[in-house]
Amino acid sequence: MRNITQDNITQAVIARFGDTPNPRTREIFVSLVQHLHAFARDVKLTEAEWFQGIDFLTRTGKMCDDKRQEFILLSDVLGLSMLTVAMNHDQAEGCTEPTVFGPFYVEGAPEYQTGDDIAQGAVGDPCEVTATIRAEDGMPIKDAVVDVWQADAEGHYDVQLAGLDRAQNRGRFRTDAEGKLRFRTVVAEAYPIPVDGTVGELLHAARRHPWRPAHLHFKIEAPGYASLITHVFKEGDPYLDSDAVFGVRQSLVARWEQKAEGAWRMHHDFVLARTAHDGAGATTQVHAGVEEAAPVLASA
Amino acid sequence: MRNITQDNITQAVIARFGDTPNPRTREIFVSLVQHLHAFARDVKLTEAEWFQGIDFLTRTGKMCDDKRQEFILLSDVLGLSMLTVAMNHDQAEGCTEPTVFGPFYVEGAPEYQTGDDIAQGAVGDPCEVTATIRAEDGMPIKDAVVDVWQADAEGHYDVQLAGLDRAQNRGRFRTDAEGKLRFRTVVAEAYPIPVDGTVGELLHAARRHPWRPAHLHFKIEAPGYASLITHVFKEGDPYLDSDAVFGVRQSLVARWEQKAEGAWRMHHDFVLARTAHDGAGATTQVHAGVEEAAPVLASA
Repeated sequence: MRNITQDNITQAVIARFGDTPNPRTREIFVSLVQHLHAFARDVKLTEAEWFQGIDFLTRTGKMCDDKRQEFILLSDVLGLSMLTVAMNHDQAEGCTEPTVFGPFYVEGAPEYQTGDDIAQGAVGDPCEVTATIRAEDGMPIKDAVVDVWQADAEGHYDVQLAGLDRAQNRGRFRTDAEGKLRFRTVVAEAYPIPVDGTVGELLHAARRHPWRPAHLHFKIEAPGYASLITHVFKEGDPYLDSDAVFGVRQSLVARWEQKAEGAWRMHHDFVLARTAHDGAGATTQVHAGVEEAAPVLASA
Repeated sequence: MRNITQDNITQAVIARFGDTPNPRTREIFVSLVQHLHAFARDVKLTEAEWFQGIDFLTRTGKMCDDKRQEFILLSDVLGLSMLTVAMNHDQAEGCTEPTVFGPFYVEGAPEYQTGDDIAQGAVGDPCEVTATIRAEDGMPIKDAVVDVWQADAEGHYDVQLAGLDRAQNRGRFRTDAEGKLRFRTVVAEAYPIPVDGTVGELLHAARRHPWRPAHLHFKIEAPGYASLITHVFKEGDPYLDSDAVFGVRQSLVARWEQKAEGAWRMHHDFVLARTAHDGAGATTQVHAGVEEAAPVLASA
């Protein structure tokens, strides 16, 4: 193709991806080109706007380090993360719904025993959390591995606190023979996602607030069951209808009850879906999934 | 919106951009969300693929520095750069067509006089270049400011050569009273775009070659005329039909003629479009355009 014009360029680019040996990779490249070009055509993107886009993406990359993932945040505020989660988990009726993973999970959280306090000095009112993990038929799931993590009362995860050298509000438990879980933490509070980067610029330009309703993260894994990544959201939170990252599902909203002055409790029941095949749980977890999936770019 | 599903999330995200005060910014955000979600739905993007995309974009950002712009390169190989150029320049019949700007332009190139040698020691066979800059009616354009830049015989621009502390194959001229231009350089040769970054991974996965046909860059500005950013491509180059960045237009192909053993010449005539209003040339140049345009993100 020697004479590229606005009328033939999309087909020319698609044709150039025709020799991609991995069919899935080819499908993704071709669809990406079609939608990227359709976007540019729809808005008749100017050269100045194109360059602003280049600059925005470049600065988004520069914001990323081992504690900050601005591209995940961008995907979150554009609803792409939640769309991807929703598309990949057509939950069986009665199973707990998943939601976004978020950027604050940490591998290798401390392992705790039933009743332990994961707060480890974090700011906030004390709260006892109890939960059950069951199968669809109501059978308790024993020895499920449950990661929990949350922000403190000031809206910060431990990894956001400069100088903190230990885990706070983060830990791993195993369910008992009755599928039960119990631990102490602080009360989750609403917090804003970080706005000192490019995602903050985007939210400001759109006059969108950066707040997420108060929530507690759960990652639950058990052999023979689909892994579950989800949150429990706090009933009554003013941001339940406008979560900055579109993660709220009504079924995940629970009541934090006050037991006494400054002492709270929360209970939630989780239901995991059995995997079709027996054996190790078919993980639907994002990071583990990455390792298992055929890589798009390294197709041999 | 409290119960986000794959069926309602796109409308929920679009609604959230409804208060964007700048109408153009709102139009771009809404279209971006629609096409981004449509892409994810079309391919039913998995969570593992989503994470690969996040990782790819992050590493693309990390490749960028003051001498390397991997996001522009990505836009180039996806045809987005050329599409943007083509959409924004419906050339009047008879005017020289523009093509991609590329990542190797440098502000403040050395100013030269007619007949000077811009090679400054660069590797390659010597070549004399002559050109005319005229209006559509054939009138010569005097004092047009013409930037020229190109790779050396080994395919490197000066900014890619570590340790080089001066400009090579790069300079600025002014046309004489007859709209003429003349300078010495080396013969342009085909070269591969850099493949040591994420764009190289993409090209490899697609089994696409990274070559660009031999070319010489021109940026031409004159008061009262639309600025022109274009290339002249070398006739006979084997990559004219498969330029890695989709920049070739038949009207921009010219003959490099051999005058003697190892000595070459090339001539090309450029025609600029008059701008509607008189006065300073309405720049269509990418970087200048960025400064002039209403910024998408900083909309007040």
